[in-house]
Amino acid sequence: MKALKQDVYDKNLELVRKQLVIYTWGNVSAIDSEKKRVVIKPKGIEYDDLTADDMSVVDMEGNLIEGLLPSVDLDIHLEIYKHFPTIGGIAHTHSTWATAWSQAGKGIPVLGTTHADHFYGEIPCTRQLTPEEVAEDYERHLGQLICKLFEDRNPLEMGAVLAAGHGPFTWGKDAAAAVEHSVILEELAKMAKLGLDINGGQPVLLPNHMITKHYTRKYGANAYFYQEKK
Amino acid sequence: MKALKQDVYDKNLELVRKQLVIYTWGNVSAIDSEKKRVVIKPKGIEYDDLTADDMSVVDMEGNLIEGLLPSVDLDIHLEIYKHFPTIGGIAHTHSTWATAWSQAGKGIPVLGTTHADHFYGEIPCTRQLTPEEVAEDYERHLGQLICKLFEDRNPLEMGAVLAAGHGPFTWGKDAAAAVEHSVILEELAKMAKLGLDINGGQPVLLPNHMITKHYTRKYGANAYFYQEKK
Amino acid sequence: MKALKQDVYDKNLELVRKQLVIYTWGNVSAIDSEKKRVVIKPKGIEYDDLTADDMSVVDMEGNLIEGLLPSVDLDIHLEIYKHFPTIGGIAHTHSTWATAWSQAGKGIPVLGTTHADHFYGEIPCTRQLTPEEVAEDYERHLGQLICKLFEDRNPLEMGAVLAAGHGPFTWGKDAAAAVEHSVILEELAKMAKLGLDINGGQPVLLPNHMITKHYTRKYGANAYFYQEKK
Amino acid sequence: MKALKQDVYDKNLELVRKQLVIYTWGNVSAIDSEKKRVVIKPKGIEYDDLTADDMSVVDMEGNLIEGLLPSVDLDIHLEIYKHFPTIGGIAHTHSTWATAWSQAGKGIPVLGTTHADHFYGEIPCTRQLTPEEVAEDYERHLGQLICKLFEDRNPLEMGAVLAAGHGPFTWGKDAAAAVEHSVILEELAKMAKLGLDINGGQPVLLPNHMITKHYTRKYGANAYFYQEKK
Repeated sequence: MKALKQDVYDKNLELVRKQLVIYTWGNVSAIDSEKKRVVIKPKGIEYDDLTADDMSVVDMEGNLIEGLLPSVDLDIHLEIYKHFPTIGGIAHTHSTWATAWSQAGKGIPVLGTTHADHFYGEIPCTRQLTPEEVAEDYERHLGQLICKLFEDRNPLEMGAVLAAGHGPFTWGKDAAAAVEHSVILEELAKMAKLGLDINGGQPVLLPNHMITKHYTRKYGANAYFYQEKK
Repeated sequence: MKALKQDVYDKNLELVRKQLVIYTWGNVSAIDSEKKRVVIKPKGIEYDDLTADDMSVVDMEGNLIEGLLPSVDLDIHLEIYKHFPTIGGIAHTHSTWATAWSQAGKGIPVLGTTHADHFYGEIPCTRQLTPEEVAEDYERHLGQLICKLFEDRNPLEMGAVLAAGHGPFTWGKDAAAAVEHSVILEELAKMAKLGLDINGGQPVLLPNHMITKHYTRKYGANAYFYQEKK
Repeated sequence: MKALKQDVYDKNLELVRKQLVIYTWGNVSAIDSEKKRVVIKPKGIEYDDLTADDMSVVDMEGNLIEGLLPSVDLDIHLEIYKHFPTIGGIAHTHSTWATAWSQAGKGIPVLGTTHADHFYGEIPCTRQLTPEEVAEDYERHLGQLICKLFEDRNPLEMGAVLAAGHGPFTWGKDAAAAVEHSVILEELAKMAKLGLDINGGQPVLLPNHMITKHYTRKYGANAYFYQEKK
Repeated sequence: MKALKQDVYDKNLELVRKQLVIYTWGNVSAIDSEKKRVVIKPKGIEYDDLTADDMSVVDMEGNLIEGLLPSVDLDIHLEIYKHFPTIGGIAHTHSTWATAWSQAGKGIPVLGTTHADHFYGEIPCTRQLTPEEVAEDYERHLGQLICKLFEDRNPLEMGAVLAAGHGPFTWGKDAAAAVEHSVILEELAKMAKLGLDINGGQPVLLPNHMITKHYTRKYGANAYFYQEKK
């Protein structure tokens, strides 16, 4: 568990280095799928005051196994892990441009190849939660709302969601991939907003054949984008 | 008084580090409520030329006790301290995005949980001052105008105001909290403006049950956001 | 002349440090009014390749006295010095936000106290030059066009102008003041544009009594903003 | 070939330093016209993991001569080199503001002298590729589409193009010039978008006599902008 705690700690700090979070905003977690343990940033403590050893380790019901008390957003993470068994890490930020889209309650359409290179389709935005969903088990309900949007989707092909009025959650095969998705999402959110302005508020959608070409150039059976350096 | 002067000096420099002020713009003060003394940045001197010892110490009528001549905005600070006995520090900046809202003469509505996490409701904007209010005791009148907006409000739940055509003032339990509110306000002002653009100028208000949930998750009797690290 | 060359060199580099210019864009000059000499950045050489000794020294007709060949914008500077005998330095940049206003062909109205603290009134924008004015002595004609806008103005109260389709020129009592005006103008241009957006494109003008209050609080016979630190 | 590999490596890193690319986004190439060899960044490896020696060297048909596997965008570069025999380097980025224009499918009109100082006319934007063009030899077709836009143009006078829905490609006499054009294009894209906003979405075109004046002041037989420092 020590290595995973170190990794989660590092990736939480990576959010700060990439200027996606300030103060206590944001959190990163990772799962050890075999041992059924989730490691997550503790709640309500500034990044400077944290050590790798402080990371919270919980079981799949959220019971604390070791470390400080977990992030208040823990239940959101747990719901996502339960529904997406193929992922290994989750990141949550209030990054400026992605949060602006969340606050507008709008998904980010595929406007360019930069988007299609990393996310296969529009990045969806949830609806607002009802008073009943907020009154009790708020965080769990938000997690379930997110997962419901992905019933027919492969979460490894769409590693991001916008929580309406709140901000982005991203995920991937591990914590590093989750953070990378947060960085890229923020850049896409900025490009999309600026391009909308240039075009008088009207989106110019990337044609489907371009979306598929760019996504499958990087991912899937016929991908030819990456190479290993020996 | 030495410790408070050091703190006020540090927090003034924190405004520079957080890129909220340039040149002589902005000022931070703190109050010693027992001794009825306010410590504030001296007027008209660049940050680089100041030392902690230069900080101005004044009584509640603004008489100089020690240090250099106080900021021209002193009377605004004094009015706020007189009306808000629970606060310990005030910060004033001309930070870009919050000032843009001030110059538009508009309060910042609650558009997301990032806002509700820190400010309980719309961040209000004053009206413009009249020629009579400006002709004499301008700074005192601006302070009174600000306080009038808070007659029915707890200043610890709404630690910011926009002075129309001018810029933001923020406060909190001490100078550090005041500066933190300036940083967060600037980020909220940016997110709010960008989200407005995305939505064609129409704000999407965060529902009241979400505002209350997020604010009370962090503050008040049932808060569960923070923890102490022992 | 050695001290003035060093100062002009330093202030040219200050434009780079303040992120107002890249590559060879922009130039700063200063005048020795007694000796009738103007020192200006040489033309077409990157900042990294310049030394203080390279600075061009010219007489009031633009004849080279010492140093490398002067900036192609020299005649603009000379015209301004001839018409504004009270100023000591001029800066020219293509800073992003001020240039955007120039490219829109619009002056920057007084929308807030940050503006009124430093520039007494709307920052004017020239008209475009005619084909005849451009065909011969282009730079001199641009200089004259700028000066014509200031026939009834004190250039020390309005230390900036926007050249339509081009970018800003600023000045002040010395090169340092000229550069400071470039920095502040860029910030004002940004605030003004963002506030316009927030208000649906409609400017909210600062009332005249506020403009006068803020400008005269800092400058003129009854100023009370600055102090000397002994 | 060693010197060219070092240069291409350096200029790829220059894109990172200028904050035009993150992760594996973007690529720079250069051509040895005599030896008919193109050097380009290898595909799918982060900048931190590359050395100068890793750079891919290919012949004009794209056959690998030495180094790692070349960028997936190689065929775009090769097409451009084949059609523009006077250029020596090409850069491709997904820089934020230029990509926003690409995603809006719009060329960048000449709105100011900053533009005319470096690019002689509107920076053109391609049409979207058809499903047939994408299905096979996608990258080669994109390269051909770009070149078709330049049939009547001197590529040294217009060193940039926007690929619709994708992003910018820039070129010049060598890799350094290509990268410099990427930097300047990004700044122009930002200025142009902000000025459009200020003017309610309506572009204010720079008059033709100004475009010609500024471009020929810097380039061509009668240029007088640059000087050599001996």
